[in-house]
Amino acid sequence: MPAVETHFSELRQSIREVTYLKSTMAALEWDQQTKMPPQGAKYRAEQTTFLAGELHRRQTNPRLMELLGELSQDSQMADRSSDFSVTIRELKRECEKKAKLPETLVKELASTTSLGQQVWIEARKENDFGKFAPVLEKIFELKRQECEAIGYSDQAYDVLLDDYEPATSTRQVEAVLNSLKDELVPLVAEIAEAKQRPDESLLRREFPVEAQKKFGRIASEQIGFDYQQGRLDIAHHPFCTELGPSDTRITTRYDRQFFSSSFFGTLHEAGHGIYEQGLRSDQYGMPPGKYCSLGIHESQSRMWENLVGRSRGFWDHYYATAQELFPESLGSVALDDFFSAINAVRPSLIRVEADEATYNLHIIIRFQLEKALINDELSVADLPNAWNEKYREFLGIEPETDADGVMQDIHWSAGLVGYFATYTLGNIYASQMFDAAEKELGDLSSQFAKGEFAKLKNWLNENVHQCGQTYRPDELIQRITSEPLNHANLMKHLHDKLAPIYGF
Amino acid sequence: MPAVETHFSELRQSIREVTYLKSTMAALEWDQQTKMPPQGAKYRAEQTTFLAGELHRRQTNPRLMELLGELSQDSQMADRSSDFSVTIRELKRECEKKAKLPETLVKELASTTSLGQQVWIEARKENDFGKFAPVLEKIFELKRQECEAIGYSDQAYDVLLDDYEPATSTRQVEAVLNSLKDELVPLVAEIAEAKQRPDESLLRREFPVEAQKKFGRIASEQIGFDYQQGRLDIAHHPFCTELGPSDTRITTRYDRQFFSSSFFGTLHEAGHGIYEQGLRSDQYGMPPGKYCSLGIHESQSRMWENLVGRSRGFWDHYYATAQELFPESLGSVALDDFFSAINAVRPSLIRVEADEATYNLHIIIRFQLEKALINDELSVADLPNAWNEKYREFLGIEPETDADGVMQDIHWSAGLVGYFATYTLGNIYASQMFDAAEKELGDLSSQFAKGEFAKLKNWLNENVHQCGQTYRPDELIQRITSEPLNHANLMKHLHDKLAPIYGF
Repeated sequence: MPAVETHFSELRQSIREVTYLKSTMAALEWDQQTKMPPQGAKYRAEQTTFLAGELHRRQTNPRLMELLGELSQDSQMADRSSDFSVTIRELKRECEKKAKLPETLVKELASTTSLGQQVWIEARKENDFGKFAPVLEKIFELKRQECEAIGYSDQAYDVLLDDYEPATSTRQVEAVLNSLKDELVPLVAEIAEAKQRPDESLLRREFPVEAQKKFGRIASEQIGFDYQQGRLDIAHHPFCTELGPSDTRITTRYDRQFFSSSFFGTLHEAGHGIYEQGLRSDQYGMPPGKYCSLGIHESQSRMWENLVGRSRGFWDHYYATAQELFPESLGSVALDDFFSAINAVRPSLIRVEADEATYNLHIIIRFQLEKALINDELSVADLPNAWNEKYREFLGIEPETDADGVMQDIHWSAGLVGYFATYTLGNIYASQMFDAAEKELGDLSSQFAKGEFAKLKNWLNENVHQCGQTYRPDELIQRITSEPLNHANLMKHLHDKLAPIYGF
Repeated sequence: MPAVETHFSELRQSIREVTYLKSTMAALEWDQQTKMPPQGAKYRAEQTTFLAGELHRRQTNPRLMELLGELSQDSQMADRSSDFSVTIRELKRECEKKAKLPETLVKELASTTSLGQQVWIEARKENDFGKFAPVLEKIFELKRQECEAIGYSDQAYDVLLDDYEPATSTRQVEAVLNSLKDELVPLVAEIAEAKQRPDESLLRREFPVEAQKKFGRIASEQIGFDYQQGRLDIAHHPFCTELGPSDTRITTRYDRQFFSSSFFGTLHEAGHGIYEQGLRSDQYGMPPGKYCSLGIHESQSRMWENLVGRSRGFWDHYYATAQELFPESLGSVALDDFFSAINAVRPSLIRVEADEATYNLHIIIRFQLEKALINDELSVADLPNAWNEKYREFLGIEPETDADGVMQDIHWSAGLVGYFATYTLGNIYASQMFDAAEKELGDLSSQFAKGEFAKLKNWLNENVHQCGQTYRPDELIQRITSEPLNHANLMKHLHDKLAPIYGF
């Protein structure tokens, strides 16, 4: 066997072991979030710390960098989209980034963010930003050090964004989010003033949990989540995780007095799950078999939650089932009224409860603030005021407490800076992809009305999922839609759906 | 720090890592048996093979033997029941045994028993012993090689028994099982002829699964299984496993047309679970915090299943609840009739469905046969005939097929030879312990009648669970009961309970 093949096979074996450990940790984490008895937590923490150490030892093995260095010289690198080339390029990128981070910084970040999450829980409960501020300042300081250690050509924030949305620059994201904001703020204001309004209260009637479970299972299965290779459980903070190439677990939570949270939450997680299930299993754990970016991952969940699950066609098909399952709450509600209610737009303070349109404004606020913090244009002390000001400006409302304002999200306390933008990038990618799919597959809403979801799913399988990390997000979106990242489709989609509901 | 302390602390750290890996594998195994989607199996097998390799590497690390060798010279070994001494003695025993096994034999055993289980499934389905015989012969041949490699002073079978019931000789087990058989066979024959018979059909009425779940949960919690440190799930083959010092998982299965399987099965597994939860958590994974032997483990499950769960006092307390939960099936059934039905004795072919009395005869048959096979007194070719003959002799019935006869259990195909006896040793230990507990705590049945189970549980915690491996099973039973292992209490218990039911 020539040296390249031997080395590539050695590399594959190393990554396979890393992947066994990662999926083992994912299994333990899933268990912890869904099944573990309360008193199991202490030992579970020790156990995962041990496994994390084993994982880290393998990921930072110098032999890995050596192999990648040799293999990256091979002529096969010329074909940028071959499995070989994608594998070496992406693993090398990841390893080089890791190698630039001093171990002291990594450890300090781990301990500070661990403390940060504890302090955040308390400070939020007590509505005491002053208590949270010192550790938050420390976290942003360490994240800035991280940016310096890795290096950048334009601005520090680029480094952090790259962790979640590779090869996507701050300027690029800023441009598209600003354009979106410029059109979204007036739309939301117009809606706030509209005379014609949906009756949202009908979604707050009684929805028995057993019937909700049944409905979520039916719909998630029919849109394409494969229960032979997955399951749906209850978790306090819903998530999707992958325990193996044919084992994807999604979760939801049920509120018997609110229809939307579990049903659309289940479609959302099923969308993530369909992406995971659509990845190449022969490349499991290797870059050609891994998700492209967090934004692309989110595009898949938003696609099924909003563009499919909140579409008229979807409910033309499913409303009879909903009425059958919830006869007391929906039996006498007209489809038009139900459809308007699930698409209602209303400025609100809490991101995770926001509607499809205003959600993006919550994100843009966080993106602008964290960018300013990292780029030293805003201090932590001034953060609560800046937060409240932006809510007033973008959404016309203002939180009465920091708990419902600047302290509502866990992300910053956990060191997740650069992450928020991917949620709205997901919405944008999704609407660009959806329109491209429709150009090829014909009117999708009328397919949904017949209960046909397979064409869209197969199109996504082929054009997105099977690509893995072959293309970076900007390349992928250009390939699929023949256009760069832009907000036009999302705005058109929102306008077309909301205009009849609010009568403008 | 003196050398001994440094070395002991190094040893503890090694065992801690071994324990992290073992409990991780237990978590994955639990998931596989209770939750994993069907297509997850292939990757899960690869993943656990990897983890098993990591575990093996640590368990056979020569440094471990070195440390044990040094520490076993220390003066602290003089106190045989100190944590130090127990730890070194038991770890050394285990390591030395492992070291004597040639790696080729270990590998051949692993691959042959893996094949063996596959062949067994097929051969049993097709009722074709001829298909199973060659691999079974190979397995017994390898187990004989294992005995030779490890060495013995009396007979080969001693070596295998020692894996499950340490420091317990074949002659000892043989003597007690023969005495039990000599009294049990006539008792079972007398019962078979009895005119007065319980109506067992009342247990085969409709028992809705939701009500069974509720009842099993209530009873298992009240006898002392702690749901803050454990859970109960559904599994095809019920089991109990430990995922951490405060995380014990038990399982059961529900048959809506049979009351006993899930209810007594749940008490049985809860008994195992109460033992695990009663072990010392400060010694988790170390010999002072590990179960004593399989026989002692089984004594705890049989205790709660049979000596508590099938006692009159238990049902004086619980029968009202049972009637409330199953009004249609039990509403008009008298407690006496129900009590007789759950204690009915009837010779049958299948071990796992056998009653409290005949169960032991199933075990004695297997013990005698596997001992004869290992000691070269019986050939695999003659096994089916020998099996059928013993069933005729001990139980007065004979299987019509080998599937319902010699091929009914998975154990031999998996290389578990020497294991069966521990089931009946468990019954014997349990009745010896129960009588000793009553001498100290007073009449237990009248405590059960008041719903009081804590005194017995606490007594077991103190006298059995907290001892871990401080004493070997024969020492433990002598300490607790002031008598050696003997069948008298078990026979008396069976006779006293069954005589009024069958009118003799």
